[in-house]
Amino acid sequence: MKKFNEMMQVQISHRTIREFTDEKLSDEQFEQLMEVARRTATSNGMQAASIIRVKDPEIKKKVSKVCNQEYISRATELLIFIVDQYRNSQIAREKNSTDECARDMDNFFSAFTDAILMAQNVVNAAESMGLGSFYMGSILNDTEEISKILDLPELTFPALGVALGYPNQDPQMKPRMEMKYRVFEDTYRKFDNYSEELKDYDEEMTTYYDLRDANRRVDSFSNQVVKKLKSPLPKRQEMLNIVRKQGFNLHLKDE
Amino acid sequence: MKKFNEMMQVQISHRTIREFTDEKLSDEQFEQLMEVARRTATSNGMQAASIIRVKDPEIKKKVSKVCNQEYISRATELLIFIVDQYRNSQIAREKNSTDECARDMDNFFSAFTDAILMAQNVVNAAESMGLGSFYMGSILNDTEEISKILDLPELTFPALGVALGYPNQDPQMKPRMEMKYRVFEDTYRKFDNYSEELKDYDEEMTTYYDLRDANRRVDSFSNQVVKKLKSPLPKRQEMLNIVRKQGFNLHLKDE
Repeated sequence: MKKFNEMMQVQISHRTIREFTDEKLSDEQFEQLMEVARRTATSNGMQAASIIRVKDPEIKKKVSKVCNQEYISRATELLIFIVDQYRNSQIAREKNSTDECARDMDNFFSAFTDAILMAQNVVNAAESMGLGSFYMGSILNDTEEISKILDLPELTFPALGVALGYPNQDPQMKPRMEMKYRVFEDTYRKFDNYSEELKDYDEEMTTYYDLRDANRRVDSFSNQVVKKLKSPLPKRQEMLNIVRKQGFNLHLKDE
Repeated sequence: MKKFNEMMQVQISHRTIREFTDEKLSDEQFEQLMEVARRTATSNGMQAASIIRVKDPEIKKKVSKVCNQEYISRATELLIFIVDQYRNSQIAREKNSTDECARDMDNFFSAFTDAILMAQNVVNAAESMGLGSFYMGSILNDTEEISKILDLPELTFPALGVALGYPNQDPQMKPRMEMKYRVFEDTYRKFDNYSEELKDYDEEMTTYYDLRDANRRVDSFSNQVVKKLKSPLPKRQEMLNIVRKQGFNLHLKDE
């Protein structure tokens, strides 16, 4: 295959970095990242996503507790990307117009998508500067508590967290399954026996874990899937209740 | 401000490109984009997002009809990023384990997030190659129909479309609001009067539309918000019904 260009080299070298050095980001670096966030594509130009930059060590600690990841409190930068229909709903109200649609699932998902696009764009920019990052999907562990901690008003919702900083570790790349199982032409392609198909990948993962830490129990991808899909996380399962509590209308036909 | 690096230059120059030349992507280019997709961060390593590459002109046309954007049928590459818990649920079943959690909102949103992260990563890579792109949030216009067209099995769901190709237009950058309205420290910051705050931005948008096409009605950002928030799109509002129809469990407390 042809050599990847510089940007793609950065992208295909993405790893989760959890430990950072003491070096801070300069104000200029942070402004550049926020300019990238600003220029990220947004549904209908609505710009319905915002960012909470957590600096207060107490708030960092509270977030890390919800996420059940103590290293979050040590992250150099902690950004929470949020669904934000509050701002636009206020604009409509100030103009004496209805904000009804700001509450619906169309606009919830548009804003959720805006937030995630922005997060990935910022992570790419950060990595191009030599920074490392980890995503915190774990803020969904308790979206009610995160909303309280960040004082999120109605019509907002925490979507994804991102931690940034200069890497203080150099982890191995984690193997991924072949894309033939994930990219299909024209219509969805089912496989008859995934366990058989993914045998080599499972082995690759086992070797990866073995090399990473000989003391930890070694695992395969398939086993991880099995474990994950039989381990319900009640508060995360029930997150739509919090979406509703934040003022959104789920628009279910039987409601 | 310091000069942006090459990668960020690409990112802050993002514009929606709707018209493409006849030049195709090489197989190698496409493979590189898919390698970027493969290396995108994924929640818990579950890789629960997939891509449908639409090549069949008939299917392209059907998608463009749902999206109500005829130029979609002329896109060089058409990629639909999907929530995919089908594959992992099958792995669990083959191992005689439960796939119950694959159906919950925790895993739906994890996979949705995976899909959107992947879309932005692919778009960044494409733009670094000189390609242009547009996002198709409009596939949410009718997720039931899109699922039918792409033959999506249970536990999958269309999240976002991306069209790619070599640009055949050179549109102006669309103005965006200042980030002080979108980036807050530690907790959410409300403003007393958004209409007043966004006055300059509204004017900037009006000038932008005026210069872009003197024949079209000129609009401000605030007016667009007002219009958007009083224009319900019933099928899009009600998309959670289709999420449920695709086999997911919404886990509402009153159900």
